[in-house]
Amino acid sequence: MKNEKTFAVLGGGSWATAIVKMLTGNGHKVGWYMRNTDAIQHIKTHRHNPNYLSSVEFPVNLLDLSSDINHIIGSYDVLIFAIPSAFLNTELKKLTASFDGKIIFSAIKGIVPESGLIVGEHFHRTYDVPFENIGVLTGPCHAEEVALERLSYLTLACADPKKAELVANALKGDYIKTKISDDIIGTEYAAMLKNIYAIAAGIAHGLGYGDNFQSVLMSNAIREMKRFIKKVHKMKRNINNSAYLGDLLVTGYSTFSRNRMFGNMIGKGYTVKSAQMEMSMVAEGYYATKSAHDLMEKLEKKSKTPIINTVYEILYNNGNAKRLFKELTDKLD
Amino acid sequence: MKNEKTFAVLGGGSWATAIVKMLTGNGHKVGWYMRNTDAIQHIKTHRHNPNYLSSVEFPVNLLDLSSDINHIIGSYDVLIFAIPSAFLNTELKKLTASFDGKIIFSAIKGIVPESGLIVGEHFHRTYDVPFENIGVLTGPCHAEEVALERLSYLTLACADPKKAELVANALKGDYIKTKISDDIIGTEYAAMLKNIYAIAAGIAHGLGYGDNFQSVLMSNAIREMKRFIKKVHKMKRNINNSAYLGDLLVTGYSTFSRNRMFGNMIGKGYTVKSAQMEMSMVAEGYYATKSAHDLMEKLEKKSKTPIINTVYEILYNNGNAKRLFKELTDKLD
Repeated sequence: MKNEKTFAVLGGGSWATAIVKMLTGNGHKVGWYMRNTDAIQHIKTHRHNPNYLSSVEFPVNLLDLSSDINHIIGSYDVLIFAIPSAFLNTELKKLTASFDGKIIFSAIKGIVPESGLIVGEHFHRTYDVPFENIGVLTGPCHAEEVALERLSYLTLACADPKKAELVANALKGDYIKTKISDDIIGTEYAAMLKNIYAIAAGIAHGLGYGDNFQSVLMSNAIREMKRFIKKVHKMKRNINNSAYLGDLLVTGYSTFSRNRMFGNMIGKGYTVKSAQMEMSMVAEGYYATKSAHDLMEKLEKKSKTPIINTVYEILYNNGNAKRLFKELTDKLD
Repeated sequence: MKNEKTFAVLGGGSWATAIVKMLTGNGHKVGWYMRNTDAIQHIKTHRHNPNYLSSVEFPVNLLDLSSDINHIIGSYDVLIFAIPSAFLNTELKKLTASFDGKIIFSAIKGIVPESGLIVGEHFHRTYDVPFENIGVLTGPCHAEEVALERLSYLTLACADPKKAELVANALKGDYIKTKISDDIIGTEYAAMLKNIYAIAAGIAHGLGYGDNFQSVLMSNAIREMKRFIKKVHKMKRNINNSAYLGDLLVTGYSTFSRNRMFGNMIGKGYTVKSAQMEMSMVAEGYYATKSAHDLMEKLEKKSKTPIINTVYEILYNNGNAKRLFKELTDKLD
């Protein structure tokens, strides 16, 4: 199963672009689906994505660029989805091709809003994809640093370790190291939750809290994440591994993080609407906050999630960030 | 035992100055020992420490400033030591006063070079101070942010919880929250080890590694710290609490950190000697690296400490930082 499998990436954003760079950098031919036909034409002509990581030059002879999602899904074995979770369902509505026998890896950090499910579960429940054919590709990894070829570590999680290896081998190279895991549920929830904590870090920064508090916030966030994931899917995992703690840190501390930036604007007094307009995008963590909150609400035995609850009150109930963060500081330790 | 105890702080640096600010801010009279008689005179006249956190104004009527360590030790019940570990032994050589009945809290993040012991153990073994009278005051807390009255969390560790409470109550206030712990050995080793990891973070930065790698480094560092401390003193502890993980993060990620700055210079190609001269000080983590390394060497069953070993080779065996970090990246995950 080693090299005969073919790879496709679905999505035209920065993370999709980074994954295509890793694969083509290793000599793989890659099917690349994106909606934007202008961008496709630009890549074919100018060898770079005009909208994301535009410094990255692609060997176009290795690319099968297409705006036809059914062509890409029908033609490749391993499908790496990097479409923002908010748009995934709309994209999948076009589907006529079948997922039979396909290996699906989610590089999406979020919840599908329509189903309230993480991406792996969404594919499993909506399209009957068996869990052994579903995987997760997770960081800690900012796409911007892949563009710069700065050393990054990826975790590939799949119930079937051979499939995790397959994708790991296709991605790893001079500046990419990989690790495999069998915790598809936990790594995917971690990837989603960290965006909420990055919003919290941004809000704190915007409100004027300093480095001392940020470290306490992150120390509480990883403990909260551990409780949350344990409640959703109990198994033996080391929450301090790169796919959980590392991913939290790279998002919570980095200025590249759009979720942190969004939180920062909220902390500085922007309304949710105006922050979203200013950024001309919706941070993934915005949806994740509602999904995580609703999920906890549904459970009979909730786990203590003061940070998620605080961010939820601020983003969805028009809560006063200053007052709610002051109350939060009493719940942290 | 609540309010009748009297407090003294020993040391004239930024952390000592911050602790005096917290205590006097709560209305406590404070004995304050420092060697520098010019600084004492300056504080008496101008109400601020000329050398550290000089924006902090003190209510001088609450201060008993003295360059006589025996006067301070003899006159106060609770002695908070914030003298850099490298100078502690020299200071204690002046000792004629007795530690009988004294409560000693170490706010020192390091190892006493002459004994190779953490400060609590040093007081215990060298001065027969019983362990129930020894405590640790730890962060995550940059003194600079205390000066700015930014919210910070302290952990007070003592085998006797009443004494931890006593010191916690004296320190906590509008911008200081406190937590108590019974893990004096673990919190003190954490406070020391984090400085080594901050040097590692600095070296990585100096060598050009990015945010993605830093998060992997920190994720590995907390796991290494957990293994190390477990080997030295096995007990039930949550390594993700603020006193361990929080303290690691505030040091590893903050630009206030002198250890990170020192590492950064090493990464950029300075020799150890020239980096120390340039900073006109020796970063605590420099000594901690040797102590931690030597301690592991002595153990029969070592724990895996690739980060400490790498920093040791660079600082003490003139190892090539670029090559050694490249090797280190293969040991991390």
